[in-house]
Amino acid sequence: MTDFGVYTKPIAELFADAALPAMEDAGIENGDVDAFYFGNVLGGAILNETHLAPQVASHIGLPPGTSVQRYEDACATGSLALKHAVRAVETGEHDVVLVGGAERCTPAGTGIETSEMTRIFGSGAHRQYEQAPGMTTASVFALHTQRHMHEYGTTEEQLAEVAVKNHYHGSMNSRAQFGEEKTVEEVLESPVIASPFRLLDCCPFSDGASAVVVVGESAAESYGVEPVDVAGISHQANASPVADQPNPPSTEMVRRAARDTFDQAGFGPGDVDVTEVHDCFTGAEILALEALGLVEDGRAGPATVQGRTRLTGDIPVNPSGGLKSKGHPIGATGTAQIVELTEQLRGESGERQVEDSTRALAHNVGGMTATAVVTALEART
Amino acid sequence: MTDFGVYTKPIAELFADAALPAMEDAGIENGDVDAFYFGNVLGGAILNETHLAPQVASHIGLPPGTSVQRYEDACATGSLALKHAVRAVETGEHDVVLVGGAERCTPAGTGIETSEMTRIFGSGAHRQYEQAPGMTTASVFALHTQRHMHEYGTTEEQLAEVAVKNHYHGSMNSRAQFGEEKTVEEVLESPVIASPFRLLDCCPFSDGASAVVVVGESAAESYGVEPVDVAGISHQANASPVADQPNPPSTEMVRRAARDTFDQAGFGPGDVDVTEVHDCFTGAEILALEALGLVEDGRAGPATVQGRTRLTGDIPVNPSGGLKSKGHPIGATGTAQIVELTEQLRGESGERQVEDSTRALAHNVGGMTATAVVTALEART
Repeated sequence: MTDFGVYTKPIAELFADAALPAMEDAGIENGDVDAFYFGNVLGGAILNETHLAPQVASHIGLPPGTSVQRYEDACATGSLALKHAVRAVETGEHDVVLVGGAERCTPAGTGIETSEMTRIFGSGAHRQYEQAPGMTTASVFALHTQRHMHEYGTTEEQLAEVAVKNHYHGSMNSRAQFGEEKTVEEVLESPVIASPFRLLDCCPFSDGASAVVVVGESAAESYGVEPVDVAGISHQANASPVADQPNPPSTEMVRRAARDTFDQAGFGPGDVDVTEVHDCFTGAEILALEALGLVEDGRAGPATVQGRTRLTGDIPVNPSGGLKSKGHPIGATGTAQIVELTEQLRGESGERQVEDSTRALAHNVGGMTATAVVTALEART
Repeated sequence: MTDFGVYTKPIAELFADAALPAMEDAGIENGDVDAFYFGNVLGGAILNETHLAPQVASHIGLPPGTSVQRYEDACATGSLALKHAVRAVETGEHDVVLVGGAERCTPAGTGIETSEMTRIFGSGAHRQYEQAPGMTTASVFALHTQRHMHEYGTTEEQLAEVAVKNHYHGSMNSRAQFGEEKTVEEVLESPVIASPFRLLDCCPFSDGASAVVVVGESAAESYGVEPVDVAGISHQANASPVADQPNPPSTEMVRRAARDTFDQAGFGPGDVDVTEVHDCFTGAEILALEALGLVEDGRAGPATVQGRTRLTGDIPVNPSGGLKSKGHPIGATGTAQIVELTEQLRGESGERQVEDSTRALAHNVGGMTATAVVTALEART
């Protein structure tokens, strides 16, 4: 994956900076790639670029005839491209799939005003029922979080601790867009965006790219790299608009995806050593910890304050810094989580290494919580 | 499929007008749908709508948990969504897949100027190497066609005959956006768009939707409908930008896709009774007839003038009226071809019925000829 931050280079060049190292890491040549699944969300609206998959494929040297496909599912784009790649390999449709995403979400070099970028970023919301009354992603996660505060007494201080923890982790990640440490006071003094979220409860707009190579068992042997196993992956779609989802905070589909993924993997939440969750807002991490079964319902706030989700805690969450500190180039986020967890399982994470990690979990959601994807990875023994 | 034309209704409502009749035709209920593959290209740029798949799924009553996915590959979007649906059923990943597309390409109700719509429509072209110098889809197909004229002596009159034939077919199709007959003189007197193409050589901007239901053999038996077999489907990606493609007119990837599809189907071009090709421009139909092997290289122009591609000819092409007369709501075009051919194979096409049709072929291309998909259908005997 690239550093996340601000780029003005073309999408194809940005993706190459992730894809070529990924192919080198996997020990494969361009001609080995049977299929290329590419995630991008905002290219049409921001850069007037659709049909990016063949163009990006050409740029990174994949030969004509490679089965290329663009995927888009808002912020869960990369994880769903990964799901389709895993299924294609499992069923024998393809042997080697390059999967990843690239996104330019910052206004840099686009000529678009920042305020206009907020409108475009809101395109994952329902046009008639959510965009029209002004519901942004921040609003929706704020509503879910407010309900959680009402139900369980979760506090703004607890939310701030999520940001502080993720910025602390990000301070050890050279790829992080905002890798400075923050204090609870700084978070609580930052301006309100959508109550209870303040500026420092929110992930940034980011540019960046990430890529992984998915291969079957036999190819993994023959390429001789150090792969990790995809132990399980599950996608559950929820209703859209969010008003049609039952029981806010509506994490039912994350719960279903987690159950399904653990069933596939043959292990449970208590066996997970390291987790990356979709902390687009601090409240989203709180909801995710409980929905994934890492802590009991209502206990994610206190668990965070107690340091349990820190690198040194018993359930380390977002060692990369998460979306909050590392950044969130939306189409690239899903596979960036997989990059982080793969490195953790290989023991390559340097000062943010979670010791003795053999089982990992990724959680990625899209739009107004309409798409939930949970992936389990396992080190090969 | 809906009538193609001008709509201002939301994408989800437009798609419902195609999807609900498709599900009724297949004899399935909402709860029977395992996966929903949805094609849309311009929603982000035109309507500020990405992440449409869950929203559209909710609108047509698919329950949460259905595996929904948006696909985008420019004008070949629908055919690639179909390919993935067919593969998912073949491999046993899903039993019943609803697949289709909906698009709003006209400026109606969007507040966007028509000239701006041309820019947005050009988003399938390479931003740096094609968009910047002003290459539109018309320009690219014009270059390919000019080369064909140079190589084989194809004439503007022969191109005009393609338009005349397709408008004649479209005059028998109540769903066609421009179902009026045209004369060769009218075509040749219309204004030049990108030489050799005049206005009446070009397909229109269209709004519309289409849907099909893909099921496995056992489901096809149990639902008791009159299905057709997908005998073969092949996708071949080409280089982008078009300048990187060898040998204009660059139809090599269509030729490869056709060979692969015929191999899967177990029959050849001489066995095909009825064909729908991607006639975004008249020259595109000429190129397609030869690349698919329906006529020898260089003979598509004369074959058209001789009436061989008319309903009553020996190789009927575009009985629906094609993109030229029926319209081209880009994300909906691929599956609309399948709707037409399914009805032809069932003998339900009324006055435009091709008699005794048992084998059908669809040809769909995307972007600057970077994506080629060929599908073979066969009546069940």
